[in-house]
Amino acid sequence: MDETNNNKYPLLSTVDSPADLRKLPPDKLPALCADIRQMLIDSLSVNPGHFASSMGAVELTVALHYVFNTPYDRIVWDVGHQAYGHKLITGRRDRFDTNRKLNGLSGFPNPDESEYDTFTAGHASNSISAALGMAIASELNSDEPRRNVVAVIGDSAIAGGLAFEGLNNSANVRNNLLIILNDNDMSIDQPVGGMNSYLAHLTTSPGYNTLRDFIYRGLRKANLIGDKQKGAILRFNNSLKALLSRHQNIFEGLNIRYFGPFDGHDLPELIRVLNDIKDMRGPRILHLKTVKGKGYAPAELNPAQWHAPGKFDPVTGVRAADQTDNTPHPPKFQEVFGETLLELARENKDIVGITAAMSSGTSMNIMQAEMPDRVFDVGISEGHAVTFAGGLAKEGKRPFCAIYSSFLQRAYDNVIHDTAIQRLPVTFCIDRAGLVGQDGVTHHGLYDLAYLRTIPGMTVASPSDEPMLRNLMYTASKMTEGPMAIRYPRGNGHLTDWKNEMVELPVGRGRKIADGNDVALLSLGPIAYECSIAAGQAEEKGVSVAIYDMIFLKPLDDELLHEVARKNIPIVTVEDATRNGGLGTAVTEWMNEHGYARRVIRLGVPDRFVAQGTVDQLYHICGIDADSIADTLVEAARNKNVLK
Amino acid sequence: MDETNNNKYPLLSTVDSPADLRKLPPDKLPALCADIRQMLIDSLSVNPGHFASSMGAVELTVALHYVFNTPYDRIVWDVGHQAYGHKLITGRRDRFDTNRKLNGLSGFPNPDESEYDTFTAGHASNSISAALGMAIASELNSDEPRRNVVAVIGDSAIAGGLAFEGLNNSANVRNNLLIILNDNDMSIDQPVGGMNSYLAHLTTSPGYNTLRDFIYRGLRKANLIGDKQKGAILRFNNSLKALLSRHQNIFEGLNIRYFGPFDGHDLPELIRVLNDIKDMRGPRILHLKTVKGKGYAPAELNPAQWHAPGKFDPVTGVRAADQTDNTPHPPKFQEVFGETLLELARENKDIVGITAAMSSGTSMNIMQAEMPDRVFDVGISEGHAVTFAGGLAKEGKRPFCAIYSSFLQRAYDNVIHDTAIQRLPVTFCIDRAGLVGQDGVTHHGLYDLAYLRTIPGMTVASPSDEPMLRNLMYTASKMTEGPMAIRYPRGNGHLTDWKNEMVELPVGRGRKIADGNDVALLSLGPIAYECSIAAGQAEEKGVSVAIYDMIFLKPLDDELLHEVARKNIPIVTVEDATRNGGLGTAVTEWMNEHGYARRVIRLGVPDRFVAQGTVDQLYHICGIDADSIADTLVEAARNKNVLK
Repeated sequence: MDETNNNKYPLLSTVDSPADLRKLPPDKLPALCADIRQMLIDSLSVNPGHFASSMGAVELTVALHYVFNTPYDRIVWDVGHQAYGHKLITGRRDRFDTNRKLNGLSGFPNPDESEYDTFTAGHASNSISAALGMAIASELNSDEPRRNVVAVIGDSAIAGGLAFEGLNNSANVRNNLLIILNDNDMSIDQPVGGMNSYLAHLTTSPGYNTLRDFIYRGLRKANLIGDKQKGAILRFNNSLKALLSRHQNIFEGLNIRYFGPFDGHDLPELIRVLNDIKDMRGPRILHLKTVKGKGYAPAELNPAQWHAPGKFDPVTGVRAADQTDNTPHPPKFQEVFGETLLELARENKDIVGITAAMSSGTSMNIMQAEMPDRVFDVGISEGHAVTFAGGLAKEGKRPFCAIYSSFLQRAYDNVIHDTAIQRLPVTFCIDRAGLVGQDGVTHHGLYDLAYLRTIPGMTVASPSDEPMLRNLMYTASKMTEGPMAIRYPRGNGHLTDWKNEMVELPVGRGRKIADGNDVALLSLGPIAYECSIAAGQAEEKGVSVAIYDMIFLKPLDDELLHEVARKNIPIVTVEDATRNGGLGTAVTEWMNEHGYARRVIRLGVPDRFVAQGTVDQLYHICGIDADSIADTLVEAARNKNVLK
Repeated sequence: MDETNNNKYPLLSTVDSPADLRKLPPDKLPALCADIRQMLIDSLSVNPGHFASSMGAVELTVALHYVFNTPYDRIVWDVGHQAYGHKLITGRRDRFDTNRKLNGLSGFPNPDESEYDTFTAGHASNSISAALGMAIASELNSDEPRRNVVAVIGDSAIAGGLAFEGLNNSANVRNNLLIILNDNDMSIDQPVGGMNSYLAHLTTSPGYNTLRDFIYRGLRKANLIGDKQKGAILRFNNSLKALLSRHQNIFEGLNIRYFGPFDGHDLPELIRVLNDIKDMRGPRILHLKTVKGKGYAPAELNPAQWHAPGKFDPVTGVRAADQTDNTPHPPKFQEVFGETLLELARENKDIVGITAAMSSGTSMNIMQAEMPDRVFDVGISEGHAVTFAGGLAKEGKRPFCAIYSSFLQRAYDNVIHDTAIQRLPVTFCIDRAGLVGQDGVTHHGLYDLAYLRTIPGMTVASPSDEPMLRNLMYTASKMTEGPMAIRYPRGNGHLTDWKNEMVELPVGRGRKIADGNDVALLSLGPIAYECSIAAGQAEEKGVSVAIYDMIFLKPLDDELLHEVARKNIPIVTVEDATRNGGLGTAVTEWMNEHGYARRVIRLGVPDRFVAQGTVDQLYHICGIDADSIADTLVEAARNKNVLK
C-alpha cells in the first residue's frame, strides 16, 4: 500500500491480517471501522460493486475477527456482498481496486482467493448448512482443538427454505454452531413474509430492551457476573424477552438458543456479547440489528438504491446513474420484460407476476406499481415461487414467473414436478441468462438451456432482440398448456425503438436471417448480435454465411434444420450458455438422428467454471465474441470440416 | 362393484362420490371409516402399495369431504401416499385393484386421473405452496364464490424448506388457506430436527388438553358458543396452549393462526372443528395427532415396516417379506451400497454418511447402526443435505450423500454451488436412478445424467453390476478433489456372489465386454444386463455385436470411443435415463466433435413423462428391454445406418 493510503487509512493500513487486528487495543477499533468505511466509499465510488450491505457489517466484521481466532475459527458469510470489509482486513486491501474485475478479487467470498473465505457464497441461505457441516467436522475431530464456526446470515436469507432446513437440523445434532442474524430489515428489495414481520416485532417488543439492559448492566456493575454466570444471565435475558415479546420465539421453538436483539453497530457491546457466548455449547443464534449503508448518509436514506449503486461522487452522494442522459439508449432486457408484462396484464386479467426477492432486479416492479394485487414477491424462495405459480396456473391464472437463471437452479424439481408433469401454463422469464459479467462464477446463468431442454413438454425459447422478447411473451400468454421458458441476458439490447406491435409466433419455428453457401450459422438469443457482426467479418474474407435465428430450442424447427442440412456445409452453433446440453447439442443430436453427416461446431461456454470480468471479456475468453465467431466461421468454411 | 363387495363394504359401496358421502347422517360415518380401512387391508394385502399412511388418514379424509364442498373446494394432499382413502370415496373404488399398475390408478394423487386430485403429489412439502397459489387465485376471482383450499401435510414434510417457504409466504398475502398438519410423529423413517421435537412438545404440554376440553365443552353445554363466538373461543384455546406449552409456537410466530392439537381419529370432534374454522379468514393451521397404521394392529406396532409392507396376510399380519427364504438371492443395489459404505467407513475415519429421511430406503441404516455418530439423517431436506455435505468436505471429511435420483433434483443448485464450484470431494450415491416402476411419474430418476453431466468438474459414473458399484465407491473414497456421482437403480442386481475385493478404477475409463463387427453397443449402468441378453439374441440372428460398458459418463473414455469410431459401424447407446442429454447425447457430441460420421442410435427413455408399471413393462414401453434392444441392434446392422 502506498504512502497516500497509509495517510488516508492510518489504522487500516497497519492491519494486514486479523492477527494484526487482534493486537489493537479495543479503543482503537472504532477508528479502524471508520477507515474501513472510508476505503469502501473511496474504492466503490470509482470501481462499482455492492456497497450498502458491507457498510452495515463493518462493526460486525471487526468484532468477529477480534473475538474469534480466524482463520482457525471459521466465519461463513451468507450472500457474500456483506463481506468487503472482511476482504479489507484479511490481506486483500492492496488488491481491492481489482474487485469484480477480470483476474481480480471476486465480489463474493471465494475459498480459492483466501483461507479466510471459508465457503462459496453467491446464492443466499446456504451459510447455516455449510457452517453446520464444518462445526460437526470439528466435533468429530476430537483430537484437534475445538473450532468455532460462525454463520452470518441476513434477514432475507434466513427466510429461505435452505436456511430453515439448516436451522431445523442444527437443533438435532451435537454442534456448537453460532448463527449471527444480521438483521437490517432490508434485503435488495423489501423483505417479505412471516419471518420478517416476526423479526420486526421481536425487536420492538415493549419494554424488553430497556429492562434487559438495566438488569444486565446493573449486575455487571455490582460485579455479580462472573464467567459462570454469563450464560445464565443471557438465558435469563432470553426468557424475559420471550415473555415480553408479543410474538413467539421461533428459534427457541426450534431448540436453538436465542440472544438478542443487540445493536450491531455498538462495537464494545458486540465484542462483549460475542465473548460471552463464544464458548457456550450447543447451537445459538445471535440477533443483531444493523443499518444497511451505515455511515454514509445517502445510502442509509435509500439502501435499496445503494445496494449496488454504480459509480458515485463520494462527497455529494450523486450516483452516475442519477445524472440526466437525454440521448435515447436501448433499454435493458429486463425493462422490456417489465413494460411488456404490464401491457399484457392490462389486456388479460388472469396474468399474474411472481418474483423471488428480485422485484426491481427483474423489473417486475413496473407491473407491481400499477397492479400490486396481481404481483407476488415471495422473497428469497425460488422453489416456493415456482410451486406457487403452479397452484395459480392450476386455477386458471397465467403466471409469469421472473427468476434469474442461476437462481432458477434452486427450483429445478419444482419446474419438473409442479409445472411440467401437470402441463401447467407457467411462463418462466429467465433473466440474467448467460454470462453476467462482474458477479462471476456463482451468478452466470449457463445451465438453464441444458437442464430445461430435457424436461418433457417444456417449451424453451430465447429472443434475439427486444421485439422478439415481446413476441415470445405474447405467444406464451396465448399458450394454454405446458410451461414455457424465455431466457434473456443481463444488460441492454441494441435497439432504441423496441415497442413493436406484438404478434403471436408459431411455437418451434426459427427464421432465416441471411442465405449463404459456405457455412451455416445458427444461434439462440441475443448473441445473434455478435453473430451478425461475425458473419459480416467472414463475408469480408470471402466466406458466404447462411444465418439462422433459432428462437426456440425446444421444440426444434425441423423444417429449418432440414434446409440447413441439405446445404451440406459445416454448421456453427452459438449460444451464451454451456456448450454441452443446449443448442449445439440439440442440433448435433438432430443431425445424427436424421441421418445427416454434418459437422456441428458448438460454440458456447466451455465445460469449466468461469470467473468474473466484463461480459465482453468473458465472451472473448469463451470464444463467443464476434471476432472469435468470425474466425470459427472462416476456418470451418476453409477446412470444410466434414465428417469422415 | 360386484355383489360381494357390496356385502363386504356395505356403506362404502354406496359412496360413489363425496356428494353421496355428504348425504350420510353423521352417525353412519364411523362405519364408513371401518369399510374404508377394511378395503385398504383387503386390497393392499394382495396388491401392495403404501399402507400405514392412508390407514392413519381415514377419519381426516372422511371429515374433509364431509365438511368441504369438494371438488369445488380443493384438497391438496402432500406426498400422496396418505390419499388412498381419498381415492376410494372419489369414484375410483372399482378401479382400486389397478393401483400402481400399468394403465391403472396412480399411487399418488394425479390430476389427470380425477378432478378431486388437485395437484401432483409425489415429492414432499409442495402442498402449502401449491394450495396457497390456489387460494390466492380464488381471492383474485372475486366474481366467483369463495373457494376453500386445504393443504394436508405430514409432520416430516412440514420440516422441508419448501414447506417453510410456503408457510412464510402464507403470512404475507391475503388468503384463507387452511393447512392441516397430519402429525403421526413418524415419517418413513423417524422424523428428525427441531421442528419435530417442537411438535412433540407442543402436544404433551402439561394440562393443556384437559383444560381446553373442559372449557370448550363447558361453554358448549351452557349454549354459550354461537357462530360468532366460535372463532374467539378457538383463539382463546390457542393462547392458552401457547401459555402452557413449554415451547414457543412457531406458527403463531409466523403470523399463522394455530389450532390444536386435536385427535385426528375423533371423527365428530374433527367435523366440529373443521366446521368451526372453515369460514374464518386468513391463513390457519390445524394440528392433528394421528396414528400411522391406525386400525390395523401390526401396522400400529411397526409403522415404518408397514409404510409400504408388500403383500401380507390380512388376518395374521404376516408379511410375505417376513417369510424365511433360504435360497441365496442377489441383494438390492442399495444393500450393496450400505454394506460397502460400512466397510469403507471402518477403514477411513473421515467417511461420513448423509441421508435425507431415507435411512432405510438407501440402506444408510447399516452404517448408522454401527457408527451412529458418523451418519446424519437430516430429514426431508435434500438441499440442506448437499450443502451440509459440502461443509463437512471443506473440513476434510469424506461425505457419502445417498439421495434418490428424483429427489436430488431438489438439490441441483446445491450440487453446483456448494460442491462443484469449490471442487469439494462429496460422493453422491444416487439410488432409484432410472425407471422405478410402480411409484410412477414423480419418482422415476431420469434426468440425473443430463443435469449432472453439464456441471463442470463433476465425475459421473454408473456401475453395471454389484462389484462395480463397490469399486466405484472405493474409487470415490480415494478421490481428493471434486464431487462424484454414482447412480444405481431401485431393486436387485443379478449376482449372489458380490463381495469382491475392491479395486480403484481409473477415472473415465470404460471397458470392452466383447468384440464384434456389425454394430457397437455402448451402455451405462446395470442396463448392461439387458444389453448382454440383447447382444446374444442379435448374435443368433447373425449380427456380430461389439459390447462396451462405459462405467463413466463423465469424463468420457476417449481411447474407447476412438476404438469404437474406427470400426465404422453403427453405434447403439443404451441408458436407463432420458435419451436426451445423457450417454447417447455425449457419444453423439463426441463423434461429431472428433470428425467421425457415425450414426448413434440413442436408446433411453423418450422425451415424455412415463407413468407407473413394473420396471420390465416400462423398459419394454421405452424400448430398452432386451428384446427391443436386440431388434434395434439387428436393424442397425442390416440397414448399416450410415450418415449421409
